[in-house]
Amino acid sequence: MAGNSFGKIFKLTTFGESHGQAIGGIIDGCPAGLEINTEKIQTELNRRRPGQSAIVTQRKEPDTVEFYSGIFEGKTTGTPIGFVIKNSNQKSKDYSHIKDTYRPSHADYTYDEKYGVRDYRGGGRSSARETACRVVAGALAKQLLSNIEINAYTASVGQIELQKKLNELDFNLTETNPVRCPDPETAERMEAYIKEIRSEGDTVGGTVQCVIKNVPKGLGEPVFDKLHAELGKAMLSINAVKGFEYGSGFEGTKMKGSEHNDLFNKDGSTKTNLSGGIQGGISNGMDIYFNVAFKPVATIMQNQETINSEGKSVEMQGKGRHDPCVVPRAVPIVEAMAALVITDYLLQNKTSRI
Amino acid sequence: MAGNSFGKIFKLTTFGESHGQAIGGIIDGCPAGLEINTEKIQTELNRRRPGQSAIVTQRKEPDTVEFYSGIFEGKTTGTPIGFVIKNSNQKSKDYSHIKDTYRPSHADYTYDEKYGVRDYRGGGRSSARETACRVVAGALAKQLLSNIEINAYTASVGQIELQKKLNELDFNLTETNPVRCPDPETAERMEAYIKEIRSEGDTVGGTVQCVIKNVPKGLGEPVFDKLHAELGKAMLSINAVKGFEYGSGFEGTKMKGSEHNDLFNKDGSTKTNLSGGIQGGISNGMDIYFNVAFKPVATIMQNQETINSEGKSVEMQGKGRHDPCVVPRAVPIVEAMAALVITDYLLQNKTSRI
Amino acid sequence: MAGNSFGKIFKLTTFGESHGQAIGGIIDGCPAGLEINTEKIQTELNRRRPGQSAIVTQRKEPDTVEFYSGIFEGKTTGTPIGFVIKNSNQKSKDYSHIKDTYRPSHADYTYDEKYGVRDYRGGGRSSARETACRVVAGALAKQLLSNIEINAYTASVGQIELQKKLNELDFNLTETNPVRCPDPETAERMEAYIKEIRSEGDTVGGTVQCVIKNVPKGLGEPVFDKLHAELGKAMLSINAVKGFEYGSGFEGTKMKGSEHNDLFNKDGSTKTNLSGGIQGGISNGMDIYFNVAFKPVATIMQNQETINSEGKSVEMQGKGRHDPCVVPRAVPIVEAMAALVITDYLLQNKTSRI
Amino acid sequence: MAGNSFGKIFKLTTFGESHGQAIGGIIDGCPAGLEINTEKIQTELNRRRPGQSAIVTQRKEPDTVEFYSGIFEGKTTGTPIGFVIKNSNQKSKDYSHIKDTYRPSHADYTYDEKYGVRDYRGGGRSSARETACRVVAGALAKQLLSNIEINAYTASVGQIELQKKLNELDFNLTETNPVRCPDPETAERMEAYIKEIRSEGDTVGGTVQCVIKNVPKGLGEPVFDKLHAELGKAMLSINAVKGFEYGSGFEGTKMKGSEHNDLFNKDGSTKTNLSGGIQGGISNGMDIYFNVAFKPVATIMQNQETINSEGKSVEMQGKGRHDPCVVPRAVPIVEAMAALVITDYLLQNKTSRI
Repeated sequence: MAGNSFGKIFKLTTFGESHGQAIGGIIDGCPAGLEINTEKIQTELNRRRPGQSAIVTQRKEPDTVEFYSGIFEGKTTGTPIGFVIKNSNQKSKDYSHIKDTYRPSHADYTYDEKYGVRDYRGGGRSSARETACRVVAGALAKQLLSNIEINAYTASVGQIELQKKLNELDFNLTETNPVRCPDPETAERMEAYIKEIRSEGDTVGGTVQCVIKNVPKGLGEPVFDKLHAELGKAMLSINAVKGFEYGSGFEGTKMKGSEHNDLFNKDGSTKTNLSGGIQGGISNGMDIYFNVAFKPVATIMQNQETINSEGKSVEMQGKGRHDPCVVPRAVPIVEAMAALVITDYLLQNKTSRI
Repeated sequence: MAGNSFGKIFKLTTFGESHGQAIGGIIDGCPAGLEINTEKIQTELNRRRPGQSAIVTQRKEPDTVEFYSGIFEGKTTGTPIGFVIKNSNQKSKDYSHIKDTYRPSHADYTYDEKYGVRDYRGGGRSSARETACRVVAGALAKQLLSNIEINAYTASVGQIELQKKLNELDFNLTETNPVRCPDPETAERMEAYIKEIRSEGDTVGGTVQCVIKNVPKGLGEPVFDKLHAELGKAMLSINAVKGFEYGSGFEGTKMKGSEHNDLFNKDGSTKTNLSGGIQGGISNGMDIYFNVAFKPVATIMQNQETINSEGKSVEMQGKGRHDPCVVPRAVPIVEAMAALVITDYLLQNKTSRI
Repeated sequence: MAGNSFGKIFKLTTFGESHGQAIGGIIDGCPAGLEINTEKIQTELNRRRPGQSAIVTQRKEPDTVEFYSGIFEGKTTGTPIGFVIKNSNQKSKDYSHIKDTYRPSHADYTYDEKYGVRDYRGGGRSSARETACRVVAGALAKQLLSNIEINAYTASVGQIELQKKLNELDFNLTETNPVRCPDPETAERMEAYIKEIRSEGDTVGGTVQCVIKNVPKGLGEPVFDKLHAELGKAMLSINAVKGFEYGSGFEGTKMKGSEHNDLFNKDGSTKTNLSGGIQGGISNGMDIYFNVAFKPVATIMQNQETINSEGKSVEMQGKGRHDPCVVPRAVPIVEAMAALVITDYLLQNKTSRI
Repeated sequence: MAGNSFGKIFKLTTFGESHGQAIGGIIDGCPAGLEINTEKIQTELNRRRPGQSAIVTQRKEPDTVEFYSGIFEGKTTGTPIGFVIKNSNQKSKDYSHIKDTYRPSHADYTYDEKYGVRDYRGGGRSSARETACRVVAGALAKQLLSNIEINAYTASVGQIELQKKLNELDFNLTETNPVRCPDPETAERMEAYIKEIRSEGDTVGGTVQCVIKNVPKGLGEPVFDKLHAELGKAMLSINAVKGFEYGSGFEGTKMKGSEHNDLFNKDGSTKTNLSGGIQGGISNGMDIYFNVAFKPVATIMQNQETINSEGKSVEMQGKGRHDPCVVPRAVPIVEAMAALVITDYLLQNKTSRI
């Protein structure tokens, strides 16, 4: 059933396969009167683009977004914003070897089981190429959020972890290195490790952390649509994500209530923030922060034994141009999805009181 | 905006505050012709009920569900199933001390900020009492799932962790102890620890693990509504949950692709299952398993400094009848939400092919 | 698929069969802080109630609504409002004769074809008894609409038509007669005609007209969710409705553009109002008016030839207590559905601009 | 709030303004494995296209649809189908005279009131050009419906009405004349009248009738989403529509129940079909038929007095290339919307029973 839309009021629907003619989407429900800086949107897209640095895939896709509607004389009109990103690099031949072969830990097998048919060119719809559309919508949403700051960054690559605490980080440093880690020293080690992994024809996982500042109080809806539940779904819907935790997360399960409770200051802020800015599913004005776990990319440059669509064993040869670690390019995607969630709840919240 | 519904085709909407006249819900979209065993539903409710053992809250709520519609002569009719659970134990006076006071790490403050008004009796809508309605719907959904088995259990309490591997567990043992841990020896240690924590007037967190067996291939929808994304949202919407991971989860981020990929057997099953039964957001027929992190209950039996609605410091005295650890009673809730997700995708999947 | 909900932000979901234990519903998305007068809600219910006058069904149902949640100390809290109306008059024996028999022009046959099973007691879910829940929600919605006036009334019964123009009507007269026609002279003729029809054991159709005054400009959404499209759906979803037209309606199709166009006054109002207060699907501040066509009630007190579930001819004997004309009792239902539509769009419109 | 989507399972979302770069849409939820004949889709588009005959607008728009995704090797893949129709004829200068002027009975004024901003070029989003996207989706849906026949045709133009009964009509004649009336003699009179109206610089309204044959029993959902309620909404969402009636419609309100009831044959079919193929909101297998009322086009080639955005009186000169009667071009749009509704309910119905 239609699973290609996200959001209730600020709603993104995407289409497109990795090697079709184009990908694109429709942003419906963007309020009228918002000035749009399309260059800033392209800038965000460039952060996700292949070929941007030595440690990401060297595929060449310019990823230029074209807006077809909903923006007039530089402003949103309240009508749906249609956009398209042409696929300039449709090298279908690269993928002919997987037409009948199921790549391990990819979606080839499950798509075939579900639909009985599949666009086998490069992952088709299951390719992370689709996330370019999310970045477009998220970048547009960011322009609606004005002073709400969303900062994602690489928090770990394999076993290498960023050790600094949240309040020690300078987010201005995130974009100063290709790994997108706001601690230059750790970034260097991560970069070296990714290069080493790539030279082995292997891949590695990692985590992205995200901090959202200046969130108004009162965002989020009770019960099923808690703010962190929707954030979690948003993150888990990104390709290769295996986990989500916010505030104290899994570590918090080991604590006692007397240690974990965030005591109030008189102004309603809290002395600690193990709640991660959300209580009862509703933002309390403190920083929202969360971690997103990315598995190692399934496409490796090593030969693997696998099966084809007839259930016969075949050897799959590692080739192509893929990311040794998805985390650096995932950073803008995490930010985009966070922006979509916050924007939607901001709009939803306009109807919570008479 | 309406956040009290869950599911697209098999859809649960709930209502009710902890100390109002009743809680209840409507299950819409249940297929016609399903024989319903209402006793089994009550049995599931009893697993969640307060007062069931020495290590949970001693509040007395019989939690008897009454069905008002949608079931006729023992079968579902395809029309909405309305149900109600009366609140027999409306001891509002227990909560008068929190009328103007914000309990730390509860939703009192955020509800007031969002709505400007709040049913202050015992958490009102933010109380976990609402989850009784989820258990009703989940228990009904289970009857639709026939041979799909959903087994949740306590995997950790504080620092005490279940050490056995998935394939070493005997789920028949889960209900043999009040902690709901399928390893009796670990269960005993957990139980002792919970009692110790309670005697301190404190609380502790923990994790619930869930394994779903015999899931048909092909469940889940591409892109935003991936099976694990919806499972994650479902779990994160349960009170006190701080994190969700499936398959290899956060640990998997430390692995290499060559270690992490699940190689195929000729029948499409996989030799390992780090994917957790889901690839590209779609079930592949292997066991689905995931972990859910619960923070320590915020209500402790110790005095805490807090603020009132006028921003003045007040001391909050610990009293009442609360759970020292939410995990044992959360087990049936996790199962219920899993059942709702799987049922919804089973129905959604009926439309995926011509 | 779940078809028992109405509205996007202000959302009503109903449950219940005519002869089950209770009917009821959940109103989700009502803004917090609204003072609720429950007596006024009961008054609206009484307008729909059987037995209210000599020309409606003499069944006895007190139709008392109980609210279980979402209202605290007289105000809405922003949480879902659950309510129940007990069925005190479950005379199932009245309906035993239709257990296996399909009443002509009822939903017995189609429900059986769709679901393979059916609550045969008095129409079950297809009974108009369900509309009592709509009246509850609509009456609550009216309290949110403050100075927006919604006036429905009987405009025709069979061939007897109200001849007066909209601006000649005094809506204070609507409730002065059992037919609910604001022209006493016409009302008398209608009433006499309904009594005559009833004495023949027959039924008759009619139309309800509705005028909505003081609607803010800008309500309605472009393209698929035009204000009149949603109004039309709302009305067509009421039992026995066969048609909907607004503004110039079907008569307008015979006009020329030069006659039909509503020319502007300088203040944006229009000199004529053939548009019916809606242009391009969006309210323009002029009165919204529309007509709703109700067919004659299918249950007649005459013998009819019909078939049973085995496809055999059987004679159905006319008996029971039914309405000879549904229109007088439909008036509050039309108003309720109009109130739900307007309320939902008022809330939706809060997000149309930055 | 997002009002640019239609359907629950088979879901169309559209974007685009009349004079922007392109219009287009996304069809989400189309089952996999459907062979698509794109030429047939283009043929349907050509039925709606301007310039197709002497009695429609002479604007030149080739209206060529390009599919970007969701169709692979001639078959649907179950993933979203993105499509675009470029606007080749962006003569913005034609519309400069209405930048600050509100055309009577258009949506200019209401869009400005709602959004505070408006793409003033030729109606922008409120232009009927958007319906081209509906025709694309409807034509694709028709290919899923196989032997279900949807036949719409012109039933009246102004006062000229098609007099033949449904069973006397030969739908093969509909496309033999530019008016799309299946009775050639009436068609000729309608055509002459439209030409006369055009020569006066005026416009005229009319009605479209639609008959759907071979609809499976059981389509439609109870209560709010009755089959005819959704059909009504679909039709009322088409530009210029003022009314909808099905089966006996408004005429049926004048009948008695004893005349109006459709008595059964032994096979479940009915001797008469005043119900219009739908009982209790669910199809009964008989022909579904309904009427749709279109007002006269608001753009006339005569001077009209109107106001500008500053509330000053201005004279608007009639010019441009517009339809004297929208009905002939509306016929394929009515069919498209009917196809979308039926397709969606066919898919929904797959989940109605276990």
